[in-house]
Amino acid sequence: MKQKLFYSLVVFFTALSAWAHYFTHSSGLQFTTAAAAIIVLAALLGKATESVSHYAGERVGGFLNATFGNAAELIIAIFLIKEGLFDMVKASITGSIIGNLLLVLGLSVIAGGIKFKQQRFNALLAGHNSSLMLLAVISLFIPAVFMRQLNVPHINQLSLMISGLLIVSYILWLIFSMITHKDVLSDENASDEEEGAIWSKGVSVLILLVATVFVAITSEWLVHSIEAVAKSLGWSEIFVGAFVIAIVGNAAEHSAAIFLAMKNKIGASVEIAVGSSLQIALFVAPTLVFVSLFFGNQMDLVFTSYELAAIGVATFIASSIARDGSTNWYEGILLVVVYIILGTAFYFI
Amino acid sequence: MKQKLFYSLVVFFTALSAWAHYFTHSSGLQFTTAAAAIIVLAALLGKATESVSHYAGERVGGFLNATFGNAAELIIAIFLIKEGLFDMVKASITGSIIGNLLLVLGLSVIAGGIKFKQQRFNALLAGHNSSLMLLAVISLFIPAVFMRQLNVPHINQLSLMISGLLIVSYILWLIFSMITHKDVLSDENASDEEEGAIWSKGVSVLILLVATVFVAITSEWLVHSIEAVAKSLGWSEIFVGAFVIAIVGNAAEHSAAIFLAMKNKIGASVEIAVGSSLQIALFVAPTLVFVSLFFGNQMDLVFTSYELAAIGVATFIASSIARDGSTNWYEGILLVVVYIILGTAFYFI
Amino acid sequence: MKQKLFYSLVVFFTALSAWAHYFTHSSGLQFTTAAAAIIVLAALLGKATESVSHYAGERVGGFLNATFGNAAELIIAIFLIKEGLFDMVKASITGSIIGNLLLVLGLSVIAGGIKFKQQRFNALLAGHNSSLMLLAVISLFIPAVFMRQLNVPHINQLSLMISGLLIVSYILWLIFSMITHKDVLSDENASDEEEGAIWSKGVSVLILLVATVFVAITSEWLVHSIEAVAKSLGWSEIFVGAFVIAIVGNAAEHSAAIFLAMKNKIGASVEIAVGSSLQIALFVAPTLVFVSLFFGNQMDLVFTSYELAAIGVATFIASSIARDGSTNWYEGILLVVVYIILGTAFYFI
Repeated sequence: MKQKLFYSLVVFFTALSAWAHYFTHSSGLQFTTAAAAIIVLAALLGKATESVSHYAGERVGGFLNATFGNAAELIIAIFLIKEGLFDMVKASITGSIIGNLLLVLGLSVIAGGIKFKQQRFNALLAGHNSSLMLLAVISLFIPAVFMRQLNVPHINQLSLMISGLLIVSYILWLIFSMITHKDVLSDENASDEEEGAIWSKGVSVLILLVATVFVAITSEWLVHSIEAVAKSLGWSEIFVGAFVIAIVGNAAEHSAAIFLAMKNKIGASVEIAVGSSLQIALFVAPTLVFVSLFFGNQMDLVFTSYELAAIGVATFIASSIARDGSTNWYEGILLVVVYIILGTAFYFI
Repeated sequence: MKQKLFYSLVVFFTALSAWAHYFTHSSGLQFTTAAAAIIVLAALLGKATESVSHYAGERVGGFLNATFGNAAELIIAIFLIKEGLFDMVKASITGSIIGNLLLVLGLSVIAGGIKFKQQRFNALLAGHNSSLMLLAVISLFIPAVFMRQLNVPHINQLSLMISGLLIVSYILWLIFSMITHKDVLSDENASDEEEGAIWSKGVSVLILLVATVFVAITSEWLVHSIEAVAKSLGWSEIFVGAFVIAIVGNAAEHSAAIFLAMKNKIGASVEIAVGSSLQIALFVAPTLVFVSLFFGNQMDLVFTSYELAAIGVATFIASSIARDGSTNWYEGILLVVVYIILGTAFYFI
Repeated sequence: MKQKLFYSLVVFFTALSAWAHYFTHSSGLQFTTAAAAIIVLAALLGKATESVSHYAGERVGGFLNATFGNAAELIIAIFLIKEGLFDMVKASITGSIIGNLLLVLGLSVIAGGIKFKQQRFNALLAGHNSSLMLLAVISLFIPAVFMRQLNVPHINQLSLMISGLLIVSYILWLIFSMITHKDVLSDENASDEEEGAIWSKGVSVLILLVATVFVAITSEWLVHSIEAVAKSLGWSEIFVGAFVIAIVGNAAEHSAAIFLAMKNKIGASVEIAVGSSLQIALFVAPTLVFVSLFFGNQMDLVFTSYELAAIGVATFIASSIARDGSTNWYEGILLVVVYIILGTAFYFI
């Protein structure tokens, strides 16, 4: 029953988005319908990835999950790069990181905290994740600080080198978390949550492919209308990237994290928020640098000082909260307050 | 006996301050006597607040304590705002935060550490407080970073919005710490320390009112003489605010924290230092922004990079020390050394 | 047998360095031979210091160890100051701190992590050290931030004052760690490792003196050739200081830390990396400021924003890793990746 409703929504929003794209001229309508379609398609893509992973065996499956986890966002970003909207891409990277660490974590902690007085999770694992997160985000931070006063060829050279190192780090992380230290890092709560396969093997792969293609198509439609929408609303490229695109691209994950928190599985919520941030910093961001080479115009890794401040603050706070291994509603409130303050500040820039 | 001596000091310094204000022309004398009067009056105000809180019942009492805890400082700041000395106000906010986190905590840790080899306190509570402190101070930090390159109307708009959010966060914090999570946060050591009521209900309220009025009067005298004193000594507005005013406004609290540490109640000292900082960041600072509206000239929340560096460093260190739940004299030394270095640096600016 | 090989290497590289200095004109050859000689002589100096400390009794011995621990680096820096290469000195201080916290710790963690799945060490001691490290490095950080906009006489005055405070802090730290809190801080693993005396008392003192003198001589040769080498390779003063000199000066310590990690004594490795950083921040850096006065041209403590960023990032990461009291190979990888990124960035500046 629930599944059927979901499939209907996917078809409905995708069709609506197609109609808006081909038969209307309102960029506002095109944008909102494309955004709605991406949100449901990303959810479908997530389910298909889990299902394929189930059949692929633990290792390959884990790798698929880790790589396709931010697929929707990656696809949107690729179309933005094609259009040369580099500032919006970097803003969307920033927005995904702060969105995961402040909004997703904050709403999850509030949602869980209203039902449960104090939610606890494996503090050792949390501390570990928190160290990795700090390391990952700082890796992204360093080049930006240093590259501010270098000339363009050096910036590009350095960006490529760092991107290579980050991708190597990410591959080593997959080896670490899925092969050498699989047992240490497994979170019982989180693994309980896996729904397993809801479709047969062939259907899963088919849905994965179809969902990816449709996410790509609707992403192109979204990007196509985005500049006109931003201009008509008076929003800056950086605000659209950091708040609108980041929220659309991550909506499916966000709701999953919140539902898990309400089932008292706050550990899994933290895992999603922190894991997704790690993936963006170590895999999505550097991959986009290499992708930009294919379009003949290299994107660098130089973030604005506002973006850096936002990433730094978000990492610092989330790490501080995650480290003690327990959460309550007030910690969630403060995370969300910081997110709102950042949002307002970005809006005014 | 002790009480009598204290009352005598209150009367003596208040009278001396009045004499200096009305019958002398030496701004140095006016300033020092007003400062001395404020210090003893703030101590009286603290005792009266505790006594009234005792009669008001736990919840209202807790709220009174939380709101009047930095009353002396708030009153001085209001008179500074009336005079348009916004830089001095912000410097005094900075000074209160670093004074609490470095000087008060440092001296308490040293005082306790000389008597006791290692002082321990509830690490969980400390971690919790530390997370909140980070979140609170960062909330203050963000707007400043972002507002540096916005135009004046946007800065004012953003400052008001952030101030509103901070006050809402503070009210939610009172609900959290006094209603929903009262039991989790209560520190046995700290609550032992409450002296209860030393006066009857009516006398307590009367003393609270009288002390508030006299703090206000002597604060006006202090502010009246402060510019002349600063000029004659060659001190900058920012140094006077961050070190002189902050120390005068917080002296009563400071001595209480140190005495508690010497009685091996370092947990209560940490509570005072961290709690007071939280109150300043989440309540005093934003309240002052709204107060400035009444005087027709809005104060913004843009701190200088020196103030931000000082607040950031102080928060970072205090949080690092508080997190492990144990202190020793050397940690106190280093906190005080950092305070002296900051003081020297501010002096030279 | 092993000892004999070591002595032969010391004699061989020192002789080779002398030959290069007096009989060749290739600054490249002079530089590499001097660097090799310093590395083996620093190792000899380390052994002699341990041996003399053994005879001197615990307290004086501990003091000797603490003071001579970075002797080679101190001596090189003094010759750099004599040549007026202040930027290179500060870069070498930066490089030693990040080298210890990222490269040494990173390689140790990797080396240990390949053999042992998870290496644990005293988390309490680690947290303590980590607090001290943060405090120490921040002490170095503050003046730089504040001094950026002061005039030269004020900068020098402030640098001297801060240097004095740091040295006082260091002396108090020796009192703390060797007298008042000796028992709390002692790490069983680390003390097991002490090799005791391999020479008689007189020979130890003699070797200590001879090694010091030869380190000084070869350091002068190194510094003599360094500018020519840097110029011919197109390396900046800051890159040479932060990476070449820092690695040469600390090589002996580095290899010791890595060997300890491979024997599953990761606690001792952390001790070396963190302890050495503390010593550099609290003792070597301020001592060099006073030393510069003897050469008639005061060095200040103003680091570039790149150096500050590097120190801040290194401290932050190492502290985050050390705090949870356990390490694995992936944490080591990320430390080294950050070091490589920093190295590349410094190279391009």
